[in-house]
Amino acid sequence: MTLDIPEVVVERLPIYARALQDLLSHGREVVSSQELGEQLGITPAQIRKDLSYFGRFGKQGRGYNIRRLVEELRQILGLERDWSVVLVGVGHLGKAILHYGGFAPQGFHIIAAFDSDPMTVGQEIAGLRVQDVGRLRETLAARPAEIGIVAVPATEAQEIIDRLVASGVQAILNYAPIAARVPPQVHVRHIDPVLSLQSMTFYVKDAPAFSPPK
Amino acid sequence: MTLDIPEVVVERLPIYARALQDLLSHGREVVSSQELGEQLGITPAQIRKDLSYFGRFGKQGRGYNIRRLVEELRQILGLERDWSVVLVGVGHLGKAILHYGGFAPQGFHIIAAFDSDPMTVGQEIAGLRVQDVGRLRETLAARPAEIGIVAVPATEAQEIIDRLVASGVQAILNYAPIAARVPPQVHVRHIDPVLSLQSMTFYVKDAPAFSPPK
Repeated sequence: MTLDIPEVVVERLPIYARALQDLLSHGREVVSSQELGEQLGITPAQIRKDLSYFGRFGKQGRGYNIRRLVEELRQILGLERDWSVVLVGVGHLGKAILHYGGFAPQGFHIIAAFDSDPMTVGQEIAGLRVQDVGRLRETLAARPAEIGIVAVPATEAQEIIDRLVASGVQAILNYAPIAARVPPQVHVRHIDPVLSLQSMTFYVKDAPAFSPPK
Repeated sequence: MTLDIPEVVVERLPIYARALQDLLSHGREVVSSQELGEQLGITPAQIRKDLSYFGRFGKQGRGYNIRRLVEELRQILGLERDWSVVLVGVGHLGKAILHYGGFAPQGFHIIAAFDSDPMTVGQEIAGLRVQDVGRLRETLAARPAEIGIVAVPATEAQEIIDRLVASGVQAILNYAPIAARVPPQVHVRHIDPVLSLQSMTFYVKDAPAFSPPK
C-alpha cells in the first residue's frame, strides 16, 4: 500500500502529526480540517485528501478525533520506535547538529559521528567522540544505523553518501548543496537554506520598498 | 502573473537553476527534460510543465538551450541582485549559519546578527559583531533587510518573527520547529530536520534488516 502514496503527501504527514500533538498537549480533543488548515497554511480540502489515503479519521462536520489521528499517524510514519543515526562531517554545522536537542526526544539517536580532519577526530562533542571517517564501514558493521546525516562539503558529499549506502544506511538527510544520487531503495531529503531562500526571492523581488512605521 | 504559479513549482525552480548552471559550468549547451529529470529525480513531464509557466524554452525533441534557460530562471527568481539578510539567534546553529560560505556567493549577505544572551552579544563571529536583540528594530530602520533567518529556540521563535515582520522583513527562513504565523504578504520557509527525518521513516520502517556485505 505504502508505495502508492505520493511523496508530497508523506512529507506533509509529520507536519500534521506535530500540529495535532500540539493541540492534544493543550487539552484539545477534536479539530476540524478547517482549523488545522488555517494553522498550517494548507487548504482543508488538501488535508482531508491527504488523510483519506490512510482510512476514515473524521466524520463529516464533526472534525477529527485528535488522539486517534495522532496515534494512527505516528504508527504510519514509524515514529513509535527509536532510530539509530550516524553523522558524517563535524564542522560548524555538524557541531550544531550534535548539540541540537530536538532529535533524541523524537526517537532519533545519533550513535556515532565521523570526520576526516585529524584536529576534529578524537574530540568529544555533546557526549560523543568523533571518529575517523575511515572507520565508517567498520563501525556500522558492528552497530548498524538506519539513517545517515551528511554535513560535509559539497565536493565530498556524493562519496560519503555512497559509503553510507554501502554500509547499510537506508535514509539520508543531506545538508550538502548537491543533488545526491542514491539507489532506489534508499531515501534522501535535502536541507539547503540557499534553495529555500531562492524560492522566496521570487515573491519578494517585485515587492515595494518598505517604509518602517514612525 | 507571478501569483498564479503554484508554490510547489516556484520551490522547484531554484533546483532547476542550480542543475542547469552546473551543466553550463561543465561546458554543456543543451539538455533534454529527460536527462535533467534523471539527474534530479523529477519526471521529464513535470519539468516541462513547470517551465511552461514561464514561456517556451525548449523545442520538441531538441532539448533546452541551457544558457538561455539559466538566465531566464535567474531573472524570474530574482537571483541577479543582492539581498540583505539578518540573523536572529547565535547559538550553535546561528554560528554555523554565520560561518557557512554558501550564502554570499549566491547574493545573500548577512548584514547583522542578534542574540539575547549577554555572553554572546558583542562577540565577533565570521567578521560580524553580534548585537543585542533589543536593537533589532532600530538597526533595521537604519539599514533595512529583505530577509530574516530565525535560529532561536521554538519558544521564542514566533515573537522574533513578529518583530522581524514589524521591522520590514519580507521573507523568513525559520529553523525553529514551529508552524510560524505571518501576514499574507510575508513569505516563510521552514528548515526542520526532524520533519525531514520523519518523512523518511515512513519508507524505512518496513524495510528488511540490512546484512552488511562480508
